[in-house]
Amino acid sequence: LNRRLASFGTTIFAEMSALAARTGSINLGQGFPDTDGPAQIAEAASRAVLTGLGNQYPPGPGVPELRAAVARHQERFYGLSWDPDAEVLVTAGATEAIAASLLALLEPGDEVVALEPYYDSYAACIAMAGATRVPVTLRPHGGAFALDPDELRAAVTPRTRLLLLNSPHNPTGTVLGPAEIAAIAELAVERDLLVVTDEVYEHLVFEGVHTPLASLPGMRDRTVTISSAGKTFSFTGWKVGWVTAAPELVAAVRSAKQFLTFVSSGPFQYAIAEALDLPDSYYADFRADLAAKRDLLAGGLAAAGFEVFRPQGTYFITTDITPLGEKDGLAFCRSLPERCGVVAIPNQVFYDDRTAGAAHVRWAFCKRTAVLQEAVERLGRLA
Amino acid sequence: LNRRLASFGTTIFAEMSALAARTGSINLGQGFPDTDGPAQIAEAASRAVLTGLGNQYPPGPGVPELRAAVARHQERFYGLSWDPDAEVLVTAGATEAIAASLLALLEPGDEVVALEPYYDSYAACIAMAGATRVPVTLRPHGGAFALDPDELRAAVTPRTRLLLLNSPHNPTGTVLGPAEIAAIAELAVERDLLVVTDEVYEHLVFEGVHTPLASLPGMRDRTVTISSAGKTFSFTGWKVGWVTAAPELVAAVRSAKQFLTFVSSGPFQYAIAEALDLPDSYYADFRADLAAKRDLLAGGLAAAGFEVFRPQGTYFITTDITPLGEKDGLAFCRSLPERCGVVAIPNQVFYDDRTAGAAHVRWAFCKRTAVLQEAVERLGRLA
Ligand SMILES: CSCCC(=O)C(=O)O
Ligand SMILES: CSCCC(=O)C(=O)O
Repeated sequence: LNRRLASFGTTIFAEMSALAARTGSINLGQGFPDTDGPAQIAEAASRAVLTGLGNQYPPGPGVPELRAAVARHQERFYGLSWDPDAEVLVTAGATEAIAASLLALLEPGDEVVALEPYYDSYAACIAMAGATRVPVTLRPHGGAFALDPDELRAAVTPRTRLLLLNSPHNPTGTVLGPAEIAAIAELAVERDLLVVTDEVYEHLVFEGVHTPLASLPGMRDRTVTISSAGKTFSFTGWKVGWVTAAPELVAAVRSAKQFLTFVSSGPFQYAIAEALDLPDSYYADFRADLAAKRDLLAGGLAAAGFEVFRPQGTYFITTDITPLGEKDGLAFCRSLPERCGVVAIPNQVFYDDRTAGAAHVRWAFCKRTAVLQEAVERLGRLA
Repeated sequence: LNRRLASFGTTIFAEMSALAARTGSINLGQGFPDTDGPAQIAEAASRAVLTGLGNQYPPGPGVPELRAAVARHQERFYGLSWDPDAEVLVTAGATEAIAASLLALLEPGDEVVALEPYYDSYAACIAMAGATRVPVTLRPHGGAFALDPDELRAAVTPRTRLLLLNSPHNPTGTVLGPAEIAAIAELAVERDLLVVTDEVYEHLVFEGVHTPLASLPGMRDRTVTISSAGKTFSFTGWKVGWVTAAPELVAAVRSAKQFLTFVSSGPFQYAIAEALDLPDSYYADFRADLAAKRDLLAGGLAAAGFEVFRPQGTYFITTDITPLGEKDGLAFCRSLPERCGVVAIPNQVFYDDRTAGAAHVRWAFCKRTAVLQEAVERLGRLA
């Protein structure tokens, strides 16, 4: 393994999912639902396979049906117009979209300003591109996390090439508010920065609204927006993601993407095209279901003694373990299966400054109600 | 787009497939079959989706069923033993396996010796890793292409980190013979080089036999072997590939791979596990069918006036267009749809030295017999 990647090893998600499997624990670590998405969408995928749709290499940019559906979806929810031919690119989930964007757009030596804590692939892809990450830390404040626009501004130097953003934010559950978004856009325009924004939790916003960064003044042509089907439609194993951006940016990302996987997920592209066109009620019901689960798990975690940062979005809750007399989240998470048969994720691995998130632990609530109830009961034993 | 990737643009496969679609030509360019693989395997994929196998993130290394099947397959065909847990890694097709291997194993400034002409992603991934490619050209000789072991030896310098190989070889159809393979292995051991070998056409060998490089003395622990299901089972759109290698190498490749796509193709992993266990007769029939198609297309190309390099393996035929009074393969391929309604691939884009392959054009024969007959008839109009 080369030096650039030497510090990355195995993702925490793989480590903790393996731990859950080995100990038979309830896995509230990695963010995948324990119930598949709509049967009608699974049937669409099955039909595609059996009728030969997508069984051979789909076109490099993705099948036209899916690109058109992505464009319709952004129009419907955000009033944003994208040309499905030149401004939409299908990827192997958001992960490939992030890798391709960073490998395409960064030169060695460039700086990337990214929100901290960050989803772990961000740091690895910045490193693969030979660039340097400059974290701006979301700080806990009155039970939630907030971005300090002054800190963000101070992080930008003449070598900054792009801002790497994520809202709704994993792992903290923060949804950047109008003032934060506006400050980001203003800074990007003023300093002429590219923006790569991971918005995979766009439909998981419980308080406030999701505002795509690309919708702000001056942002459309400098922003690479990433989203995916896995979180919204509960088929994380299909790995269908996409990028929307101006034609030159899409072309650049495609140049890298074509050499990472070439293409992916042939038949699933057709099924997700259908999924994106589901009626508004699908999205509303999905959100309502998860809002109730958030409340259930948040209540249980508070009862078990954790300090709970109530998430405005995503399907993750971050907690502080200090009230339980604990201070090292990684050690805590490694001991948790033995202590109560539950697995969680230590936020500290998403920080450069490992003290900042040392006592924070993340819990996924995209699980069946009965599973969450059982988890809450088990967590009660910690108190 | 950054400087490293600036010269790569759009892959020739995307360009030529788009040209075929636009002109309604017979597409003998990109290597994908026009008939899907076994119905029983499509049904296995459909069943996986409908019963919820792989609809959520599969494990990072791939589902255990597929890793075990890959190991059984290598044992059955080559007598090679791999530990499915530590020595097999599932990827999003061979393309991701190549990208992850090169991004994991190369340091900026390293040299990679690769056979020329090379599949286009090799050069792009070497560039993304910040390394330098050193081509060793397969030279036409008596109707076939051959590797000169002395040229290979001369290409290795103290900065050479790895040999990037491919046999059966795309685009020339060359199958490296026992002497060539032995010379490669000897050199790798002597100079202590890593070897990354793309063996996706392992079951498409019409003359001679496929010898995995990993089976040679001293090679097992220094070789990353890449293969995939797309070519062998005619489901190129599913993008299921894999790496077999010693545990430390697999761990290194996985470190990069987890940040490129994380995981991929959930339900298809189960279907391909079933496919790999198909009886020997499947593989024999598949090969026999394609051998007949090779003969049909090779005959037609010769009759149309091309010099034909009869391939020992793969589903591609390389021809020389000089006898037709042509000398620029790219211009020829761009004009071909208009002239006779057929699309092919100009080999010159797979060379650093664009004169070496300037007059070579590649034709895929993984198409229905009637389609090949029609193509042959159309090509007859060129004479
Ligand atoms: C690819 S693991 C995925 C991201 C996620 O689901 C998580 O943060 O748990
Ligand atoms: C990914 S395009 C694929 C490789 C191949 O099939 C080709 O060389 O045509």
